[in-house]
Amino acid sequence: MNRIPIAEVEKTLAAVLRKLGFAPERANLCARLFAETTRDGVYTHGINRFPRFVETIRNGMVNPGAKPEATARFGAIERWDGQRGPGNLNALAAMDRALALARAHGVGCAAMANTNHWMRGGTYGWQAAEAGMIGICWTNTMPNLPPWGGAEPVFGNNPLVIAVPRAAGPVVLDMAMSQFSYGALESYRKRGEMLPVDGGWDAEGKLTRDPGAIEQSRRVLPVGYWKGSGLAMVLDMAAAMITLGRATHEIVADPLLETAVSQMFLAINPEAFGPAPRAAQIANEVVASVAGSPAAAHHASVRYPGEQTLRTRTENMKLGLPVEPEVWTQILAM
Amino acid sequence: MNRIPIAEVEKTLAAVLRKLGFAPERANLCARLFAETTRDGVYTHGINRFPRFVETIRNGMVNPGAKPEATARFGAIERWDGQRGPGNLNALAAMDRALALARAHGVGCAAMANTNHWMRGGTYGWQAAEAGMIGICWTNTMPNLPPWGGAEPVFGNNPLVIAVPRAAGPVVLDMAMSQFSYGALESYRKRGEMLPVDGGWDAEGKLTRDPGAIEQSRRVLPVGYWKGSGLAMVLDMAAAMITLGRATHEIVADPLLETAVSQMFLAINPEAFGPAPRAAQIANEVVASVAGSPAAAHHASVRYPGEQTLRTRTENMKLGLPVEPEVWTQILAM
Repeated sequence: MNRIPIAEVEKTLAAVLRKLGFAPERANLCARLFAETTRDGVYTHGINRFPRFVETIRNGMVNPGAKPEATARFGAIERWDGQRGPGNLNALAAMDRALALARAHGVGCAAMANTNHWMRGGTYGWQAAEAGMIGICWTNTMPNLPPWGGAEPVFGNNPLVIAVPRAAGPVVLDMAMSQFSYGALESYRKRGEMLPVDGGWDAEGKLTRDPGAIEQSRRVLPVGYWKGSGLAMVLDMAAAMITLGRATHEIVADPLLETAVSQMFLAINPEAFGPAPRAAQIANEVVASVAGSPAAAHHASVRYPGEQTLRTRTENMKLGLPVEPEVWTQILAM
Repeated sequence: MNRIPIAEVEKTLAAVLRKLGFAPERANLCARLFAETTRDGVYTHGINRFPRFVETIRNGMVNPGAKPEATARFGAIERWDGQRGPGNLNALAAMDRALALARAHGVGCAAMANTNHWMRGGTYGWQAAEAGMIGICWTNTMPNLPPWGGAEPVFGNNPLVIAVPRAAGPVVLDMAMSQFSYGALESYRKRGEMLPVDGGWDAEGKLTRDPGAIEQSRRVLPVGYWKGSGLAMVLDMAAAMITLGRATHEIVADPLLETAVSQMFLAINPEAFGPAPRAAQIANEVVASVAGSPAAAHHASVRYPGEQTLRTRTENMKLGLPVEPEVWTQILAM
C-alpha cells in the first residue's frame, strides 16, 4: 500500500478529469470528492473506484460537461434533471439545494432524476451535517438485490444516508440495503475468510457466510431479511415517483451501464425556530449515552456510525492517503 | 378465537374510553384506530394491546384529555408538544399537520415531543398514502435494543414508517429496528417454535434462533446487525433534536411507564408540481415488477410491505375481527 499526500491525489485525479472533458473547477471538485472519500476510510468508493468512474465517462454513461437543471419548483421542494452528469457533482448540487430550501422553509427537498452513481453517499450526509442540518438522502440503483422470497435481483441495494450534525463530529449513517456489498464479498473471499454473519444464500437456497457461494448465486441478503427488502422497495418507489425518473426495474443491471438513477435529498433545519443550543446538547448526550455503555462479550466496544471517521481522517491526512499500487499506476497512465 | 363485528368492537372500546375520561368524539376515534389495527391484521397493536393502553391511562402516563399544542411554526415545519395525550390520537394529528404543510409547501414536517406510544405506526403511513402523499414517520422508544457491540439495551427499536400512495393499495413499510419484537419472541416460544432466522444473542453471546434464550438475555438483534443499530441511533437523535423532546436514554425502560417519546412526521406531495399521472403509473409498475418476479426455493412467492393488508382487511370485515376470548372478557369488564 502506497501513501500519497491528499493534495497530490487531488491534482492527479483532476488532471485525468480535465483530459476527459471536465471544466477545470469541476475537475478539481470531483477529484476532491474521490480523495476525501479515501481520506475518510471509505476505500471502496474513493480512489479505488476512480478507474471504473473513468470507464463510465469513456463509454458515454457519464457526461462530464452536463450540469443539473431545475425542471420544477414549488415551495420547499424542487425537481431536478441530472442530465446524466457526474453523479457526485450532481448529488452535491442537489443536497446544496435541499439545504437552501431548509434554510428558507425549515425543511427542504430536492429530487433528482436522470443522474449517475453518487459514489460515497455519506459525502452528502457530511455536507448537510457540516451545514448544521439533518440530512436524509437516498438513491436507487440497478437491480442487485433479491426481494424477500425472490430468486432474482429485482430490487436495488438503494443506499440510505441519515446524518445528524454535532460539533465534535456528526453521526452519519450510510447504509445500503444489502448486508454486504459485492466488493465486501470479494474482499472476504480473497482473504479466505468467512463473513462474520450470514450474507446471502447459496445455490441450494440456504443462508450462508461463504462469500464465494453468494457471489455465485447472486442472492445477497437484504438487511434484516424481509425488512430491508421492503425498505429498498419504498425508497425506490418514492424516488422514482417524486423525480418522475427511472425506478430500479428500468435501470440496466450492469455496473458499467448503470445510469439515469433517481435520488432524493431532504434537509431539516434544527435551527428553523431560532438558535437551538439544546439540540446541540441532545446530540452530545445521545453519543455519550452510547459511547459509555458496556461492550458485549466478543466485542471491544460499542460502535456507532461515523465513530471512526474523524480518527481515520486524521491518520490519513498525516500519513497520506492509502492507495493500492496497481490502481495508482493505472491512474497515472490515464 | 372469537369473531366480532368491527362496529361492535369500536362501540365497546369507545365506551371504556369514555369511562376513563375521553370526550365522546375522541373516544370514538381512538377506538376506531385500535379496531382498524386489528382489522388490518396487526394483532399485536390492536385490540390485544388495548388492556395495556388502559393501564397507562390508569397509571397516569397517558392523559386522555390532553390535546397537542403547536409550540413553534416556521415555513414548512412545525414543532408540537403532545402533552402526554393518547399516542395514537396525537400521531394522527401530527401526520395531519405534515400533510397540510406538504400541500402548502410540497414537503412538510411536524415534530412532536412529549407524546406517547403511537401503537401501530403503519396507521400514519396509511393516513398519508390515502391523502395521496408519501409519508415518512418515526418514533423513538424506551431503551430496548442493544447497540452493535453492546451488552445492554441502550437504543430504542424506534419504528420507521415509509408509505407510498397507490390507487390499488399503498405500499406501507412499518419496521421496528429489532428483527423481532418481544411479542413475536413470546409467540414463537409459546408455540414451541424456533425463529426462522437469528433473532438475538443467548447468555453466552452467541447468535441464536431460540426465542426463550433471547427473552432471557434481553439482547434482541438489530435489523441488519450494525446497520439497524446505526439507524436506530440517528432516528432517535433526529427526533429528539428537532422536537427538543426526550431521547431514548431519557425514557423509562418499562412498557407501563414509557412516556414522553419524540416523533417525526414528514410528508412529500407527488402532486406538488401539478397532477402527476406518471407517478401513479410508476407505483403500479414497481409493484408489478416485484409481484411478477420468480419466487426463491422454500418460498411461495415474493413478498412486499402491505401486500397482504387489503386481503386481511376484507376477510376481517366479512367475518368479524378476530379477538382472543380472554382479552375480550377483560375489556367487557372494564
